[in-house]
Amino acid sequence: MPDARHPSVPNLTTAHSAPLLRFEKLLLEKAPQIEGWFRREFHKTPAPFYCSVDLRNAGYKLAVVDTNLFPAGFNNLNPSFEPLAVHALQSAFEKLMPSACNVVLVPENHTRNLYYLEAVATLRDLITKAGYAVRIGSINPAVTEPQEIALPSGKNLRLEPLKREDDRVYVEGFKPCVVLLHNDLSGGRPAILEGLKQPVVPHPKLGWSDRLKSQHFAIYQEVCEDFAEQFGIDPWLVNPLFRNCGEINFLKREGEECLAANVELLLEDIKTKYAEYGVTDEPFVIVKADAGTYGMGVMTVKSVDEIRNMNRDARKKMASAKEGNEVSGAIIQEGVYTFEHWQDETEGAPLMTAEPVVYMIDHYVVGGFYRVHAGRSNTENLNAPGAQFRQLAFNNACNCPEPSQAPDAAPNRFYAYGVVARLALLAAARETVAAMASDAR
Amino acid sequence: MPDARHPSVPNLTTAHSAPLLRFEKLLLEKAPQIEGWFRREFHKTPAPFYCSVDLRNAGYKLAVVDTNLFPAGFNNLNPSFEPLAVHALQSAFEKLMPSACNVVLVPENHTRNLYYLEAVATLRDLITKAGYAVRIGSINPAVTEPQEIALPSGKNLRLEPLKREDDRVYVEGFKPCVVLLHNDLSGGRPAILEGLKQPVVPHPKLGWSDRLKSQHFAIYQEVCEDFAEQFGIDPWLVNPLFRNCGEINFLKREGEECLAANVELLLEDIKTKYAEYGVTDEPFVIVKADAGTYGMGVMTVKSVDEIRNMNRDARKKMASAKEGNEVSGAIIQEGVYTFEHWQDETEGAPLMTAEPVVYMIDHYVVGGFYRVHAGRSNTENLNAPGAQFRQLAFNNACNCPEPSQAPDAAPNRFYAYGVVARLALLAAARETVAAMASDAR
Repeated sequence: MPDARHPSVPNLTTAHSAPLLRFEKLLLEKAPQIEGWFRREFHKTPAPFYCSVDLRNAGYKLAVVDTNLFPAGFNNLNPSFEPLAVHALQSAFEKLMPSACNVVLVPENHTRNLYYLEAVATLRDLITKAGYAVRIGSINPAVTEPQEIALPSGKNLRLEPLKREDDRVYVEGFKPCVVLLHNDLSGGRPAILEGLKQPVVPHPKLGWSDRLKSQHFAIYQEVCEDFAEQFGIDPWLVNPLFRNCGEINFLKREGEECLAANVELLLEDIKTKYAEYGVTDEPFVIVKADAGTYGMGVMTVKSVDEIRNMNRDARKKMASAKEGNEVSGAIIQEGVYTFEHWQDETEGAPLMTAEPVVYMIDHYVVGGFYRVHAGRSNTENLNAPGAQFRQLAFNNACNCPEPSQAPDAAPNRFYAYGVVARLALLAAARETVAAMASDAR
Repeated sequence: MPDARHPSVPNLTTAHSAPLLRFEKLLLEKAPQIEGWFRREFHKTPAPFYCSVDLRNAGYKLAVVDTNLFPAGFNNLNPSFEPLAVHALQSAFEKLMPSACNVVLVPENHTRNLYYLEAVATLRDLITKAGYAVRIGSINPAVTEPQEIALPSGKNLRLEPLKREDDRVYVEGFKPCVVLLHNDLSGGRPAILEGLKQPVVPHPKLGWSDRLKSQHFAIYQEVCEDFAEQFGIDPWLVNPLFRNCGEINFLKREGEECLAANVELLLEDIKTKYAEYGVTDEPFVIVKADAGTYGMGVMTVKSVDEIRNMNRDARKKMASAKEGNEVSGAIIQEGVYTFEHWQDETEGAPLMTAEPVVYMIDHYVVGGFYRVHAGRSNTENLNAPGAQFRQLAFNNACNCPEPSQAPDAAPNRFYAYGVVARLALLAAARETVAAMASDAR
């Protein structure tokens, strides 16, 4: 799916590309077996309704660093891929309910974040194109009346209050058979969505009020080990090492020793792997809230002293996660360098750090985009909106490897993204099963 | 999915576009209901594995004129849509057999028709991209050894003899779990495919050795009536009237009276519908073999005298269908003018008659192309390869209506194609059920 506006893909510059090249070569050679493996796995454990996965490509390693079950960047995908997303939505809804026709979409509570609302409008339009009537039912207590919001794209978004009668939710004059949740429930699980007769997907237990990154990555590690064993690779090539600390209060300096100890251990483990692969980069770790963030409370750490010597500002920043919740648990994750760079073709354009984000609906990859940031280095979290931050839609669908081309040619690099992203998707699928089996916390 | 090479769609030139415009408007307004209706119908009656449908657009009417269960033009689709076909193939194979991994593709017996073999190679590549190992198993008795065929596209095709052991077929060193038939069995159902343990799709009963166009169109008519009743349209807008004659031998002039009588009756019926809609075009009918053709044995008839006064050459042409079989039954179908035209942008380029062909895999539309022909008029069959014949890939996926644009804007015209084509797909689905229920003839 060529897109004239984005004729190229970011450059990958690293001296240590041999391990990844071997990996990409393996993916190409074993594509039918890999697809067969995914098929069997997703048959056993159905994929979540939708999912986006942040990857980092260090050249010697292509790893998942975040898995989002409420992906909010559909407006950043290449419009050329719309038909693909429409297919996948049809397939996802059909599995859910063969006769489903009315969908209510429950968005985040933001009513002024136009950027977010553009994503909701795009998702709404995709669902409409898939042939479902859809309305937006807000659970924001401030939305008591329908409101029309004009978006910068020229689209309109109508937010309506979600109402409940007995064990069914609705918006005025519209009875949905499916509730599509697009709210990560960072603020807790709302009563209006509990015990409904209508299916709610993803299940509210998959919101950040219940979900932990450390749990996801523990399962992701298992998935990577299964995959690695099946196909004879080192799971480290796709899996970032991690550790976690239970209770941390950055402001009160509680749990700091646990954090420091784990940072130290993890830096050692990374050093060992780097030595094994002859990587001369400096190891680093990422410390972030265990229960979802919006890019807040994320810290790059190269030495344990940085933890011990945190000043009050840094502590405050780490403590303030989304919706004002204090961070209580932290995950310490192996930092993965991103050696992908983007540069606009205009003269004097800055070199921007790039990381791929892959979008999936059901078990289908439906595209993705690069986050590019001119103000952030290759060890930093790029999900930091601002003037130097942009999204570049993939010009490839990630599901069309080209065996006739080099293993690192664009279609094959995108295919590799799609494979690794689906490992995280499978982890999310297993996480869903585990969440449904456990009692609500 | 814009395609720079084909920035436009054919022009539709007719004075009588009001009925179709109303129809296109309805499709747009009722898209969710229409998609819901298709969903329910394909849930009741699963779609065939793949299917292509020839449409003719007269402006006042958009009708199916042929439904092919072994579509041989995958190489004519826009490469931009590959990811869509890959999705749909994955979905189709998964339904068939969740764990399937090896596919044997059984092609037509042509080994020198490079044009056909390009289509087979494209289909093979799509199936490979969908993550299935695939080999080509020929049932041509002349293929006794594997043979590599170099194609004009630069691709290679390896034909291998299909072998059988007990109730399973295979090619040397490769055990398929699914047999994908891409041979319309005009020459009869081969013993090697009978009573297999592996699923054979489409079922050999759907080949032209058993199938009749008149049966398909009888079911298509029912489907159109169901659809029309549901959505309040005149089924004639999408359904060509037809009649059929049982036994005809053109060379021996047997059955000619039946044919003439039916041609006369059908021309009268068309005249009545034309009068109702104020259409001033001259009615015509198409006479063709009831059991599949390759564009052979097709005749445009405007007056019954043309039947009565057929000369020996014309008779011979009608008698010679594919693989030398004599035509025994004939279908007389309302001729549908095509008022779509294509003209290259080069100076002095001829005005070419165009007709859309829509491709589907499972119940998904995956694209299509226009057949354009400079040497054929708007009442003639355009499926007549030659120097003046070309295929122009659709630059739209047919599944993304744009409610914000005019009902006859390109994405919406393509959506209309996709809706009408799926009516024929549904007819083919019901035809499959009927074929499986009946004893082998």
